[in-house]
Amino acid sequence: MKSIKVGLLGFGNIGRGVWDITRMNNTTITEQCGYSIEISKILVQTDKDRGVNQGLFTTNAHEILDNPEIDIIIELIGGLSPAKDYILKALNSKKHVVTANKAVIATYGDELLSAASNNGVYLYYEGSVAGGIPILDSIRESLAANRIEEIMGIINGTTNYILTKMTKEGSDFSKALSEAQHKGYAEANPSSDVDGFDASYKLSILSSLAFNTKLPVESIYREGITKISPIDIEYAKDLGFVIKLLAIGKLREDSIELRVHPTLIPAQHPLAAVNDVYNGIFIKGNAVGNLMYYGRGAGSLPTGSAVVGDMINIIKKMSCSYPSPLSSGAPEKKLQSMESTRCEYYIRIMVKDIPGVLGKIATLFGNTGVSLSSVIQKGEGEPLVSLVFITHNTLEEGIQRAVDEIKKIEEVAEIANIIRVENQYQA
Amino acid sequence: MKSIKVGLLGFGNIGRGVWDITRMNNTTITEQCGYSIEISKILVQTDKDRGVNQGLFTTNAHEILDNPEIDIIIELIGGLSPAKDYILKALNSKKHVVTANKAVIATYGDELLSAASNNGVYLYYEGSVAGGIPILDSIRESLAANRIEEIMGIINGTTNYILTKMTKEGSDFSKALSEAQHKGYAEANPSSDVDGFDASYKLSILSSLAFNTKLPVESIYREGITKISPIDIEYAKDLGFVIKLLAIGKLREDSIELRVHPTLIPAQHPLAAVNDVYNGIFIKGNAVGNLMYYGRGAGSLPTGSAVVGDMINIIKKMSCSYPSPLSSGAPEKKLQSMESTRCEYYIRIMVKDIPGVLGKIATLFGNTGVSLSSVIQKGEGEPLVSLVFITHNTLEEGIQRAVDEIKKIEEVAEIANIIRVENQYQA
Repeated sequence: MKSIKVGLLGFGNIGRGVWDITRMNNTTITEQCGYSIEISKILVQTDKDRGVNQGLFTTNAHEILDNPEIDIIIELIGGLSPAKDYILKALNSKKHVVTANKAVIATYGDELLSAASNNGVYLYYEGSVAGGIPILDSIRESLAANRIEEIMGIINGTTNYILTKMTKEGSDFSKALSEAQHKGYAEANPSSDVDGFDASYKLSILSSLAFNTKLPVESIYREGITKISPIDIEYAKDLGFVIKLLAIGKLREDSIELRVHPTLIPAQHPLAAVNDVYNGIFIKGNAVGNLMYYGRGAGSLPTGSAVVGDMINIIKKMSCSYPSPLSSGAPEKKLQSMESTRCEYYIRIMVKDIPGVLGKIATLFGNTGVSLSSVIQKGEGEPLVSLVFITHNTLEEGIQRAVDEIKKIEEVAEIANIIRVENQYQA
Repeated sequence: MKSIKVGLLGFGNIGRGVWDITRMNNTTITEQCGYSIEISKILVQTDKDRGVNQGLFTTNAHEILDNPEIDIIIELIGGLSPAKDYILKALNSKKHVVTANKAVIATYGDELLSAASNNGVYLYYEGSVAGGIPILDSIRESLAANRIEEIMGIINGTTNYILTKMTKEGSDFSKALSEAQHKGYAEANPSSDVDGFDASYKLSILSSLAFNTKLPVESIYREGITKISPIDIEYAKDLGFVIKLLAIGKLREDSIELRVHPTLIPAQHPLAAVNDVYNGIFIKGNAVGNLMYYGRGAGSLPTGSAVVGDMINIIKKMSCSYPSPLSSGAPEKKLQSMESTRCEYYIRIMVKDIPGVLGKIATLFGNTGVSLSSVIQKGEGEPLVSLVFITHNTLEEGIQRAVDEIKKIEEVAEIANIIRVENQYQA
């Protein structure tokens, strides 16, 4: 198997995520791009044991940037300096670069992209906005046929967590902020998040790409969430709205409108349901219409997913590979039979309204090994009433057996409906 | 400007969308891929006036498939035959192919992708699943670093429209179906949608790509929505659930689980808010975590967006182009000043609770040209009460002027908060 040598600059939260993903998904990655990825050197600030082969680490950037065997540099140091110089040096040495550094892209993106283009290499930065949500890639590739007319995004997880807490629990700003800090979602100095700086950087990157022009971060109107009080949230609710910190970019007839500020949006807007640390980005294109993306906007693995995704993309482009037929290479995978599927079930049974029938049915469920989580009975006094059961997770064949038995009960008129339940969702 | 010649097979709803997009977004497309797209020939079944240059049309497929000047074929005929033969012939003539034909990809995808790979050309089919939502591209490119563990999708707009009607209005299935037919969302023979066949085709394509194996449509367990009654929807609601037709694919330890059936999902699940003809696809990757896409799953322009997007993608790959620096080529775009921004506003004012103060403030808003849409007053009897106003769409500078005047009113203690409102959302 051919391998691609990669140099990692920085081994913090995201660097560790990239390391973990290239290990745990090694097979998938090789299937996707035809190469295995070898992280051959990692730049760190100090020597210490990190539970990873010590020989990989160096405190000298030149060991990576000047290594002719390394094709791709992953910059995860953050901040402007020395990140910018390292990226520029890598591009000028004709190495492809992937970064998740929003500050460096929002500030020097144009200069760095020029350098990449002049050197015939790629510079990708999907991880710099909205973590694992592939929004930049979508704008650049899949939505390329559209004139993008509007972007509205919840692109800062910390403030979304705080506003969600304030909305759901009525806490005031400072209490919700402490909780966010306690959970590690907010920094000791929270200004970058709560004053909207972080969202402004991301909006600058997002809208520069969407509207295909340079939109520097200083030009963005910015207001944070520190002045929002529980009473505003309550009034907004009475009026049918939810308050979110939005980053907004709109294409006007002869100009572009950019702003980051707390915003009332209708409770039925898809963004209104984006809660906790989740991010959501709403895009309107003149062909595709309204589109929304929802996912984790930060974190070691989600952001690592974007970084490794960029890397795979580059490798595929380097090798001009074609999408492979579905079955080639990959092993045939077995389909699970429906009988051996596990699910929760909603079962509605029409019964004669006679005392004791619920007990009979519930006992039968128990005897056939089906455990129940809820029961509702409605329509008292009519000749036939509905009994509704929700089961715990059960084998499909167990349900079939139980239902066959229940049909035999004299008071049971009909198994009116059986519908599966997917209940494993956790935000 | 260099141009790429494209042949279009079929000029129905989606073909017309592709035609319209290449006209209206000509500049954007050229900015994106460095070429202009020229639809040089269109295959139709019969000659008639379509309001487009008649010379473009032909009823003879060979005029397109055997034309050495045409690099890309767009297949939008639908169905298996002759679509499959045309695609195969195009690939074997080393032409790239884009299709939105779910039947042909679900049935012959593997054979066709092999032919593409053997001939060193691309076969893309983003439009075959979920219209304009770039879900296949995301799985293939941006999420390539992930092992996809789960897919749950609302990928049939017709049944989602029917279930939404039944949920919101309590209509029964047949009434909701008639309405869907009346609006053109359902066919006269609705079986393909309501019995889940359409969703099964799409799940076969989606899961074959996500799980990287061949998953034929016949192997998918399938149940439609015809047996769902309003009473089930009501019980589900009482229990905290919503009923949706889901296409589900799950990666199990040594097998894959695939099924299409009506499903109860928790009301707070992001898919529960996907209503009307919208599609939503929920994906879980082992690095990125939970991700959701939401958008229009059908229609001339949304599906056209996917088709033209595929085409741009191919052109960029043919020419191995690098993402251009943000400002190059594109004209500099002006930023709109905040004062000239228009918005609705939420304004909360603390006032002394004296009769007539609401009138004074409302009059002042009117005098400064700010029109109000709602007012709430709460906290009667306390020394200071909150008055909350929502304005109609207003210039930012108009709001500033009004607020400056209102501050001078004696009974006004404080302008407690001003928050912008984004209220233009329509599903």
